[in-house]
Amino acid sequence: MIDLRSDTVTKPSQAMRAAMADAAVGDDVHGEDPTVNELEATVAELLETEAALFVPSGTMGNQIAARVHADRGDEVLVERESHIYKWELGGLAQHAGLQVRTVDGGSRGVVTPESIAEGYVEADSHRAGTGLVCLENTHNSKGGTAISADEMDAAARAAHERNVPVHVDGARLFNAAAALDVEAARLVREADSVMCCLSKGLGAPVGSMLAGTEPFIEKARRVRKLFGGGMRQAGVLAAPGLLALENRTRLADDHENARALAAGLASIDGLSVADPETNIVMSEPATPVERFVDACAAHGVNCGPFGEGRVRFCTHLGVSREDVETAVEAIAGI
Amino acid sequence: MIDLRSDTVTKPSQAMRAAMADAAVGDDVHGEDPTVNELEATVAELLETEAALFVPSGTMGNQIAARVHADRGDEVLVERESHIYKWELGGLAQHAGLQVRTVDGGSRGVVTPESIAEGYVEADSHRAGTGLVCLENTHNSKGGTAISADEMDAAARAAHERNVPVHVDGARLFNAAAALDVEAARLVREADSVMCCLSKGLGAPVGSMLAGTEPFIEKARRVRKLFGGGMRQAGVLAAPGLLALENRTRLADDHENARALAAGLASIDGLSVADPETNIVMSEPATPVERFVDACAAHGVNCGPFGEGRVRFCTHLGVSREDVETAVEAIAGI
Amino acid sequence: MIDLRSDTVTKPSQAMRAAMADAAVGDDVHGEDPTVNELEATVAELLETEAALFVPSGTMGNQIAARVHADRGDEVLVERESHIYKWELGGLAQHAGLQVRTVDGGSRGVVTPESIAEGYVEADSHRAGTGLVCLENTHNSKGGTAISADEMDAAARAAHERNVPVHVDGARLFNAAAALDVEAARLVREADSVMCCLSKGLGAPVGSMLAGTEPFIEKARRVRKLFGGGMRQAGVLAAPGLLALENRTRLADDHENARALAAGLASIDGLSVADPETNIVMSEPATPVERFVDACAAHGVNCGPFGEGRVRFCTHLGVSREDVETAVEAIAGI
Amino acid sequence: MIDLRSDTVTKPSQAMRAAMADAAVGDDVHGEDPTVNELEATVAELLETEAALFVPSGTMGNQIAARVHADRGDEVLVERESHIYKWELGGLAQHAGLQVRTVDGGSRGVVTPESIAEGYVEADSHRAGTGLVCLENTHNSKGGTAISADEMDAAARAAHERNVPVHVDGARLFNAAAALDVEAARLVREADSVMCCLSKGLGAPVGSMLAGTEPFIEKARRVRKLFGGGMRQAGVLAAPGLLALENRTRLADDHENARALAAGLASIDGLSVADPETNIVMSEPATPVERFVDACAAHGVNCGPFGEGRVRFCTHLGVSREDVETAVEAIAGI
Repeated sequence: MIDLRSDTVTKPSQAMRAAMADAAVGDDVHGEDPTVNELEATVAELLETEAALFVPSGTMGNQIAARVHADRGDEVLVERESHIYKWELGGLAQHAGLQVRTVDGGSRGVVTPESIAEGYVEADSHRAGTGLVCLENTHNSKGGTAISADEMDAAARAAHERNVPVHVDGARLFNAAAALDVEAARLVREADSVMCCLSKGLGAPVGSMLAGTEPFIEKARRVRKLFGGGMRQAGVLAAPGLLALENRTRLADDHENARALAAGLASIDGLSVADPETNIVMSEPATPVERFVDACAAHGVNCGPFGEGRVRFCTHLGVSREDVETAVEAIAGI
Repeated sequence: MIDLRSDTVTKPSQAMRAAMADAAVGDDVHGEDPTVNELEATVAELLETEAALFVPSGTMGNQIAARVHADRGDEVLVERESHIYKWELGGLAQHAGLQVRTVDGGSRGVVTPESIAEGYVEADSHRAGTGLVCLENTHNSKGGTAISADEMDAAARAAHERNVPVHVDGARLFNAAAALDVEAARLVREADSVMCCLSKGLGAPVGSMLAGTEPFIEKARRVRKLFGGGMRQAGVLAAPGLLALENRTRLADDHENARALAAGLASIDGLSVADPETNIVMSEPATPVERFVDACAAHGVNCGPFGEGRVRFCTHLGVSREDVETAVEAIAGI
Repeated sequence: MIDLRSDTVTKPSQAMRAAMADAAVGDDVHGEDPTVNELEATVAELLETEAALFVPSGTMGNQIAARVHADRGDEVLVERESHIYKWELGGLAQHAGLQVRTVDGGSRGVVTPESIAEGYVEADSHRAGTGLVCLENTHNSKGGTAISADEMDAAARAAHERNVPVHVDGARLFNAAAALDVEAARLVREADSVMCCLSKGLGAPVGSMLAGTEPFIEKARRVRKLFGGGMRQAGVLAAPGLLALENRTRLADDHENARALAAGLASIDGLSVADPETNIVMSEPATPVERFVDACAAHGVNCGPFGEGRVRFCTHLGVSREDVETAVEAIAGI
Repeated sequence: MIDLRSDTVTKPSQAMRAAMADAAVGDDVHGEDPTVNELEATVAELLETEAALFVPSGTMGNQIAARVHADRGDEVLVERESHIYKWELGGLAQHAGLQVRTVDGGSRGVVTPESIAEGYVEADSHRAGTGLVCLENTHNSKGGTAISADEMDAAARAAHERNVPVHVDGARLFNAAAALDVEAARLVREADSVMCCLSKGLGAPVGSMLAGTEPFIEKARRVRKLFGGGMRQAGVLAAPGLLALENRTRLADDHENARALAAGLASIDGLSVADPETNIVMSEPATPVERFVDACAAHGVNCGPFGEGRVRFCTHLGVSREDVETAVEAIAGI
């Protein structure tokens, strides 16, 4: 099977496996795991923030950030299709008593200064005021769109003009950086915190990073404990995480594969395909989604139904150019 | 001053004051206040529900309802400009851990079956599912629009088809009933619970009612206690509340006054005025809102800024036809 | 029936009823109710605090205070039998995410500096730190014990030495003041906030006051709105509330009646009776509580089962010395 | 340094490291990680429950369990010194709106049927009712006491008689089983859920298990996602977890070492030492704790201050009999 459902299915490389086996470890709850400490320092340097924190998942990273930034009862301004709103089980309300206000980011999911101006609420005696703006880059539900540095800066400045902090859900931030050919740090230069995943396209088996100022990370560490995200000898996960960071340079291959995949799929009758910006190809089959997905699976290709008549294909390090070609042929043959 | 800011400024009549002074009372926390009991029975009969509960405010009634109907982490589907979302301090998230999803109800704030179909979310391992639909009638932010029985029924059925309960924020439900010339009970026939205010246009000094099935009200009573809404000799509020219900028949006068006010204001240059469906007149002055409101006040008329360049005028039992005419002349003279 | 179950059953006097009928009112949600404003100013002056806020119930006052003082995740240190812990539906956890730590206040329910020293927790990476100490005076479950000014001061100082604020649940604070023959303000001199009830022994039909600094009350006002405790023409409740404050001077009569009742009950075989400090008489009948309570009722006396084999009798303005004598005779005759 | 601070400092063995490197993995968020699935099945079989769930930490396991078992506003009955109450940042209140009621488990931390009878609260209109009893075995703060099967059964039955479910915090459950020479499953036979750690004495680098009925685990899986505890290729942690389970048989060595350590320490002047039941030795030095701990460290032994003048020593797989002897000599030489 060629598994194009998601880049979350990536498996650790032999080098990562060896790194796990050799990792120097300690009790990270006491701050004594040297490999976790190295990973946190490395990510902070990479993203040009003061500090960083290893967390078990991107969801936990996002939820911790929201809770640290915003007071209970605040509003969080997010794009209508953003992951933190749509796929995290209502955590903003449940963990932190935060109310969501959505803005429509259009086909690419861009939160503009205008939409922030419109969605911003000044707290008063009757109203919950805006306490956080959350940006997502790449934007998953919009097909992995890579939001540019200028777009990110403009949104962040619009938030900061209103004294509202900005968190970036950068689960696939390095995909955006690769697609835009900039450093990831440049994309989040104006943000107050950023979460990025070591799993997914970078290939680590487990883990995400939350980065920000030292006081922010200090508070985040305590909330991580509250959430049960404090782990003991987490160096065994940090070691492959360090190698995963090196995989940034190969994300461009995934994007090229995605373009090849999109081109191939677009040539198939009855399949409408969007141009991919990164490693996600969104398509709309003429046949019902479920039947299409089943047919693909019967022909050796796994893809994922994605709501509203759409099917998502993700390229990742487990998918070669040959796999892409095989997949296109298989689907064409349905 | 002619106070057109809101119908929340209505003062109790002499009859209500006498009723307070004469009210038979007991400890309502023990269920022993005869006047509260009478009011609760009266409202249940009026709205054709099994039971009803006296609460200190419409906000508390709405928030109790949401908490009783939905589980933490559920989504609540509401119109984008609804009171429960916009003006209750993020209570849905804070009191009950509920995430809001908004639908756009257009210029009249109508939640349609189509918008429910689009906004409905089936719970799964990643997603908070829809646990409540909340409808508002009349719709305050849209200018007191009166949602028809058919519109209410259609929305409620669309929710029920998906096993989602429906709460009606009927802070001005009796205005809707008067405008549509139907019984209030008819408007909420398909709803699972309804909140209606005794203050505002009905003129009671304090209090709202929450109505629904007996098991619902039993749970609501306990949540009311949790919120600190259990009051002792509340019969002194229930007595004017009973008289307030009789004021339903005079709401048509307020609506006629609102139409007269709208017609008068519309004839003034530089003032765009929407046709009122009930007792709320929304207008957009050409001058900045704040300056307009101040100028009105300087000329003896209080009106209320309402966001997005709008000014709200409310008619109510404290405003006569003469007051309306005087107000129009005064504003025309600015 | 002579109703000795609780002083919550007190009914408003004719003067209070007349005051309600005559009250000047306005929309208190907009701060425009003159009688509410007068009541809030009067209570602030009486308790020597900067400001005060009218709330629908003592429970709401306590819960608002806890939420304003403490951050989510903090611990609240309370006496093991305190009302805020035992009878408010777990509100500290539900409204504010606060964890309770209890200290044993002995037979009189006194929170000592020693118990604060023992119960105090310094926040660290694993532990919720103490964010509030709550004192109750008089202590209801301990039989209305009147905690002295020195005891109150000592506890407050022990809290303040640890930078922990102090809230006083003074539902019956004026009973304590009357019993100790001091001003109520003296009892709460070192406290950061205090809640006192206008209902109960003071006889107002509805309402309690929360008092503290101006910034505290400003935050409390917003939380009151969140809880649904903002009421419109609340002057109709504030007017009898003002008269209720004058009833402070007659609480000594209730205490004398309680002593007479205790003496009378103590002379009855099979009834163990504690010496009352204020208006609450706790007794332990030799017969099962439920049977005893039923027998009393059958003989024209209502009293209240109070857990652990105890029965509570409360004197209040609805109970005269003759009622006490009649009640003792009736119970003796069982 | 000989590190006796805690068994949380244990490092994975070479076999565990190899197992990580060789682990078959998949996306566990989709239920596709074969090694996680094997671990969950193995633990369910071992504890004789229907199902089990891998979680990143014991804290998350406990908090998920409490949230699944109890409704917001319920009380949780726990031993006064239990981990879930003392060391989890007020999570019961924060995550689930639960109020804690403590019982005093005496020197061994045993929750008896009598204490449950006393602490149990029947929910009513004013009171939060008991929704969960949580037992801890071994009891950490009481010095690793091993609560017997009979004691566990008796407490669970007392809870069940009141329709209250029982969760066991078995962070060191296998230590209890080893000390009592029974199967772990026997100790939790009457429980509704159990959490046990693979880290600590069993030596896995990361992870704990939550076990219970299938419906319970299904709900727990969703709450794990909400908490951000869903991890991708978690098989790399499950593989050493499977080997950790085999370390159960060697816990008896740690206990023997603990007894040797206790005997050695007890022979030192100025050091009061409790008899250990498992791998935890609690001692009270005559000198101030901090100075004692520093002096130990200066002599090559790490131990942990544990509040109230106590110092905790833990034996574990990283500590040999020789280490114990060296440690005793070193401390004797202070």
